[in-house]
Amino acid sequence: METPTQRALERIEALGRISDHPDHLVRTFLSDASKSAARMILGWMTEAGMVTQVAADGTVRGILPGEDPQAPPLLIGSHHDTVIDAGKYDGALGIISAIAAVETLRDEGIRLPFDVHVLGFSDEEGIRFHSTYLGSKSVAGLLDGDALAAVDSHGVTVAEAIESEGIRDGVTPILYQPGSIRGYIELHIEQGRVLESGNLALCAVSGISGQSRLVVDLTGRADHAGTTPMALRRDALTGGAECILAAEKLAAENPPLVITVGRIEVHPGASNSVPQNARFTVDLRHPEDSSRNQVMGKLHETFQSIAEARGLDFNWSVAQDSDAVPCDAVLTSRLLDVLKTQTDTGICLASGAGHDAVVMSTLGPVAMIFVRCRDGLSHHPDEYASPEDIASGITALVGFLKSFQY
Amino acid sequence: METPTQRALERIEALGRISDHPDHLVRTFLSDASKSAARMILGWMTEAGMVTQVAADGTVRGILPGEDPQAPPLLIGSHHDTVIDAGKYDGALGIISAIAAVETLRDEGIRLPFDVHVLGFSDEEGIRFHSTYLGSKSVAGLLDGDALAAVDSHGVTVAEAIESEGIRDGVTPILYQPGSIRGYIELHIEQGRVLESGNLALCAVSGISGQSRLVVDLTGRADHAGTTPMALRRDALTGGAECILAAEKLAAENPPLVITVGRIEVHPGASNSVPQNARFTVDLRHPEDSSRNQVMGKLHETFQSIAEARGLDFNWSVAQDSDAVPCDAVLTSRLLDVLKTQTDTGICLASGAGHDAVVMSTLGPVAMIFVRCRDGLSHHPDEYASPEDIASGITALVGFLKSFQY
Repeated sequence: METPTQRALERIEALGRISDHPDHLVRTFLSDASKSAARMILGWMTEAGMVTQVAADGTVRGILPGEDPQAPPLLIGSHHDTVIDAGKYDGALGIISAIAAVETLRDEGIRLPFDVHVLGFSDEEGIRFHSTYLGSKSVAGLLDGDALAAVDSHGVTVAEAIESEGIRDGVTPILYQPGSIRGYIELHIEQGRVLESGNLALCAVSGISGQSRLVVDLTGRADHAGTTPMALRRDALTGGAECILAAEKLAAENPPLVITVGRIEVHPGASNSVPQNARFTVDLRHPEDSSRNQVMGKLHETFQSIAEARGLDFNWSVAQDSDAVPCDAVLTSRLLDVLKTQTDTGICLASGAGHDAVVMSTLGPVAMIFVRCRDGLSHHPDEYASPEDIASGITALVGFLKSFQY
Repeated sequence: METPTQRALERIEALGRISDHPDHLVRTFLSDASKSAARMILGWMTEAGMVTQVAADGTVRGILPGEDPQAPPLLIGSHHDTVIDAGKYDGALGIISAIAAVETLRDEGIRLPFDVHVLGFSDEEGIRFHSTYLGSKSVAGLLDGDALAAVDSHGVTVAEAIESEGIRDGVTPILYQPGSIRGYIELHIEQGRVLESGNLALCAVSGISGQSRLVVDLTGRADHAGTTPMALRRDALTGGAECILAAEKLAAENPPLVITVGRIEVHPGASNSVPQNARFTVDLRHPEDSSRNQVMGKLHETFQSIAEARGLDFNWSVAQDSDAVPCDAVLTSRLLDVLKTQTDTGICLASGAGHDAVVMSTLGPVAMIFVRCRDGLSHHPDEYASPEDIASGITALVGFLKSFQY
């Protein structure tokens, strides 16, 4: 007989074949493939013995009844939408592992003191509306006017899309009040290489890092590359290079701080002209907001003094500033106990990427499990988590659920 | 009565109004404005008492006869084409100053032992055919098959342009054999800020710097900006930044070496991705080829070790390598004597930009005079040389010519 883990592995493949594009995997908010994926997940939830529901936006829920239907439920979930040309594991693994964990409890005849809700969110990646977490925001009652008014590339709003393209038959609003849940736990691939480089299959997550995004502009003077001696130059790019290295050094000296300059543009951008202007982005993440703010101050000071020393005009603009979302200490400690028992190690890693847990933390305590993925690759067709690591992840989820038994 | 210098200043304004575009100055090879400019210059040469000639490509010559028509002539010249949205002085000043010098000799009744040839070249900037020095190359017999086969943006070759758009009435080929000239002297705006920052109106030129142009490629690994700790990154841009600063330092330590990184492109170029690839240009100039080659070796070694230390793949490709063209020591020493007498200082500056003198050096010894220009600005409508500095330049040319009197 097939085990829940074997079924989970098959389901990852099956869900990975549901795509809006014949050649690569893509499922965006309320697309045909997205609605097919929701139906497929509902079918698995039903097979697992859960009471199933679907919301008009395509978010699905399976309920495993516990001893006390009045007790606050424990939620487990992730998202079933994808980026363009995606991998099979990002999001899908969390939903499918949750169903496998529920099946394991059922197979072992275990009944928890409270209901378990498995959630499959309709949108986390935000590809269609350039606005992340539509699914979990809806569930958390946070789909406000602004979010509903966001438009896709055809000018259709979120509200109009739900109205005209949404699921109609037998839909139920899926909505929680803050404080009404026992907690939310999400299993997700790491999307990084820390577990792989540490030779670990799993870890707990301490929280989702806060993030600041900046655009920095340095302006000097365009000059002839042949006729301007080095001492007479005000080169914006050499100034930018000094800033980039200073940022790298600051991050290297302050782990787990990460700073990335991912884009740079130079004007006039001719091989024989001294650059007049260099504009670059800075992406700065740290799990602690106070540390992030401190580093931001330090970075600003450093960039400013580099610009001053080189006679460059300096502009710094903050494009985004999102606070860290800590995972719940009690839930995470419970999870770490399970991981230590199961794997002999229990480490906690900050997530540098956002997850549905960010939104779900407005409803109650959250925890997360990361599963190792090959080469840290994600948002890519070669994204991969091994069957062994997936089995470990399901075992950890099961252990976590069992820890709530009387 | 108007002096030759006053006339020169008016002629700079007049020539600056001859343009192919109503709103900005542009004269490219054999354009209507270029042919009008040639006719205007021929008129001035005639007024100055010279025998005038025009070649089919629009290069003009005025001959001031000397005592011995068999003696090798002394050539003075520059170009009458411009870049797009150009200034009035680049090129034009050299031709107009030469005519003013000839007028001064005539006014003073001075006859030199040899003919003086004033040349106005049809193309130095190479805007139309992306191939510089068409005018002086033709005069030096260097317009070979490759050069004649170069095409403009309409697919017209240089040979076809001369055939169908060239000047027809009364044209004379203007051509010199190597060794047949006494020398070539060119007066040009500096196109840099060394004279201005040294508070000098004029200088002699030691030579035209050799130049190497490189394209450098660094390749690391694209990674998620949030999930990849600094120690696990192979960031191509931080590697590039280190190379850029190393190049700047090397140049600063080895004047008159100049190194410029004018272009940089980063892939994938997203603010939340660690850069996988950074590609940048390097422009390296030095008046001495041995020093340039030595620095190239050092730079290669430095870049390679930066790439190795960061686990980056490194590619270095030389796009261009042109040797320095030294000015003639004897002619330049004669010019320096004139400058010292006239201005109390005689300094020699290497030219980081190319000039017609590069091509003319294949015919015989060359010398150059630089005239201060405001803010070092050139190839720009705000290009400016003061009437006083232009007058000094003409006086220096006159002094240089007079030094050949018996």
